[in-house]
Amino acid sequence: MSARSRQMKLGAFLWPCGHHVAAWRHPQGVADGGLNFPFYAEMAQLAERGLFDLLFAADRVCVAPGDPDIISHMSYVAWLEPFTLFSALAAVTRRIGLVFTVTTTYEEPYHIARRFASLDHISGGRSGWNLVTSAQAAEAHNFSRDAHPPKEERYERAREFARVVRGLWDSWDDDAFARDKESGLFFHPEKMHVLDHNGPLFSVRGPLNVARSPQGQPVMVQAGASDDGRDLAAETAEVVFTAHQRLSDAQEFYADVKARMAKYGREPDDMKIMPGIFATVGRTEQEARDKYEQLQELIHPKVGVMLLSQFMAFDLSPYPIDGPLPEMPENKVVSSRRTLLTDLAQRENLTIRQLYLRMAGARGHRTIYGTPTQIADELEEWFTKAGADGFNIMPPVLPGSLVDFVDMVIPELQRRGLFRTQYEGRTLRENLGLRRPESLFVTARA
Amino acid sequence: MSARSRQMKLGAFLWPCGHHVAAWRHPQGVADGGLNFPFYAEMAQLAERGLFDLLFAADRVCVAPGDPDIISHMSYVAWLEPFTLFSALAAVTRRIGLVFTVTTTYEEPYHIARRFASLDHISGGRSGWNLVTSAQAAEAHNFSRDAHPPKEERYERAREFARVVRGLWDSWDDDAFARDKESGLFFHPEKMHVLDHNGPLFSVRGPLNVARSPQGQPVMVQAGASDDGRDLAAETAEVVFTAHQRLSDAQEFYADVKARMAKYGREPDDMKIMPGIFATVGRTEQEARDKYEQLQELIHPKVGVMLLSQFMAFDLSPYPIDGPLPEMPENKVVSSRRTLLTDLAQRENLTIRQLYLRMAGARGHRTIYGTPTQIADELEEWFTKAGADGFNIMPPVLPGSLVDFVDMVIPELQRRGLFRTQYEGRTLRENLGLRRPESLFVTARA
Repeated sequence: MSARSRQMKLGAFLWPCGHHVAAWRHPQGVADGGLNFPFYAEMAQLAERGLFDLLFAADRVCVAPGDPDIISHMSYVAWLEPFTLFSALAAVTRRIGLVFTVTTTYEEPYHIARRFASLDHISGGRSGWNLVTSAQAAEAHNFSRDAHPPKEERYERAREFARVVRGLWDSWDDDAFARDKESGLFFHPEKMHVLDHNGPLFSVRGPLNVARSPQGQPVMVQAGASDDGRDLAAETAEVVFTAHQRLSDAQEFYADVKARMAKYGREPDDMKIMPGIFATVGRTEQEARDKYEQLQELIHPKVGVMLLSQFMAFDLSPYPIDGPLPEMPENKVVSSRRTLLTDLAQRENLTIRQLYLRMAGARGHRTIYGTPTQIADELEEWFTKAGADGFNIMPPVLPGSLVDFVDMVIPELQRRGLFRTQYEGRTLRENLGLRRPESLFVTARA
Repeated sequence: MSARSRQMKLGAFLWPCGHHVAAWRHPQGVADGGLNFPFYAEMAQLAERGLFDLLFAADRVCVAPGDPDIISHMSYVAWLEPFTLFSALAAVTRRIGLVFTVTTTYEEPYHIARRFASLDHISGGRSGWNLVTSAQAAEAHNFSRDAHPPKEERYERAREFARVVRGLWDSWDDDAFARDKESGLFFHPEKMHVLDHNGPLFSVRGPLNVARSPQGQPVMVQAGASDDGRDLAAETAEVVFTAHQRLSDAQEFYADVKARMAKYGREPDDMKIMPGIFATVGRTEQEARDKYEQLQELIHPKVGVMLLSQFMAFDLSPYPIDGPLPEMPENKVVSSRRTLLTDLAQRENLTIRQLYLRMAGARGHRTIYGTPTQIADELEEWFTKAGADGFNIMPPVLPGSLVDFVDMVIPELQRRGLFRTQYEGRTLRENLGLRRPESLFVTARA
């Protein structure tokens, strides 16, 4: 692809009420957004009008760890389950991709393979799976486990889980179903494949009871930034969501992960890296800043400290809110984001309050505000300087921030030739410029 | 409710392509029905035009046990997964209930509680769960198990599973969410409930990360006809699907299960019993019979023998197809349907071929054909003689048989005052005439 024709890929990250932790308190915020399907449908159609490649939703399988007297001031405690939400959204959208998080830690590969393949059929080839391992002990307690499994165990499970799921997706050749009414032959028996996976953690016979889906396989998405996460991404991910504050970090990640792909026989273009961008748009820079500050002022201090504590996996509530971060002991379970935030605090000499104000909104992602031109400049720089193939846009408050992005930033990106003016294809793969994968079994025969 | 105002409840059972095993071969049959979402959407809207209480789909978590050279002549091998299918249908329908099968044997209660509650929110209170235990060894092999668990184990798990799910559904009081933008209080902490279930099989802490749903709890549906099944139904089911050939059997079941409810503190009206009816409608009796015979002639003999063998859990392929059923050894795993079919064969002196012709279409359910008046007479008799509160209608071939039922039988039932002329309510519970359950935690406080 020539440099001229290369265009950025965009995701619309639909956090309930908006990505900012205080979005639900915004005067124009939809406070019951997490459970309001007509609202989600409206947001999905808005993102589709903006020609976004995909909608994305995060998930976890617990309410919210923490003291009820604190979490009662947060909106991310009850929301629509992604398989049900995105399947319903499939029926009210036509072209936009449908990507969401499902954990490998407390699920079974047969169920997950089946649901994503089924959604791929329902949506005409628009499903994608953000593969994660569970990050919180509170999740373990909802699944008859005493303790949260250590990271190595979770990644080992995730790797085998992904292999089983992808094997199951190839249970049927694309042309397996004859459906010959005359002869009575519904499928060609030799085009049905029994996976018969017998691994250390899973024994899954197959075949899957869903035909190979329009995309061949739903798009594989990941977000891990640790060393294990980078390797897993290099092996299996086709879209990678990342969290970087600085272009240099984004470039390092981009180069490193794309370089790791070779050992799995993959080309750099087989993966789209999309950092999260928490963008507030205004007609003037001042207006954008005012919008952002209005949300920041709505963060309850207890919520801020708690969120920061959870990201750090370390209770910061006993420490002075206007003092520096304390020394924290090593913690094996903690994600790579602690390092990111600790570095930020040291670099800019931030207090606990200042640090939570940085992360409580965007939660580790890059926060930018400005005019459409300024926002487009920032995205263009990362995109053209090998920091990103596109971006996962996190509207701080819904619907407002998404409306602003669609109506103000998208046209500016289009004017610069950096973004599509119509969908290129019918499937998520076609729009992302990803190959339709050959079946495992076809490859084995060749 | 007075006898005069009592009206029957109707379900539309959407088997892919239609309920008859050869439906896909019918000249007007939709051969790819199992994977064709626009087709399902059309069927759902048709059933809603007919004012059916609910759509229903069966499910299993394997392709189809059996020799690939035989099952390759059957259409029920690949179909849309129910959580995804029914969530998408929720977006294209407004009043009809959305009920489907999910196994308790290879699932986790937290996931299931969450998805049904979420669908209840998305659909505005129309979801229902047909709780089953897995029936086939082929399912075990897709979930890292060597063997299919025995029936007692599966029922023990099902009972505890249901208790956990219902407890999780009450995690939040109906008025738990304050969403007070001014004070910043999103929910009242004292209205969130930690289930903390610690049973022999499950330890599930909760709370569920979905608010209490429009129906309070999704409708609980069951289909077990065995002694264990009847007891489980009496304890937890609000709708019961049954399979009876004769009114006397239906009456015995109806009286027995409703009588068992008292020991669980339930009223007979808290449960709607709906036998399956495999109905072929014609403008004349001869036309109906011709339609039925046309489908029967399309059954491949190998498929017929295999289906019968599976229902019996005994391989009948070595026996003469035009001879009688052989003696079969006891089998603990087999369902209550073997008894039903063995009785039928003895009563009517049927050969293997004649028996599979009886069951391969309706699979144990009552087969009737006739004019709209004749069909209505049959339904009215069972309904008024304490054999049924309504029926689960199994259209032999889609769309034809459902079109016929909606356009010909529904008006006849309405003329007789036996069926609604408009939906009574917005939720499935309201239409079925079922109480909205009090929360477990509210009850405990009272």
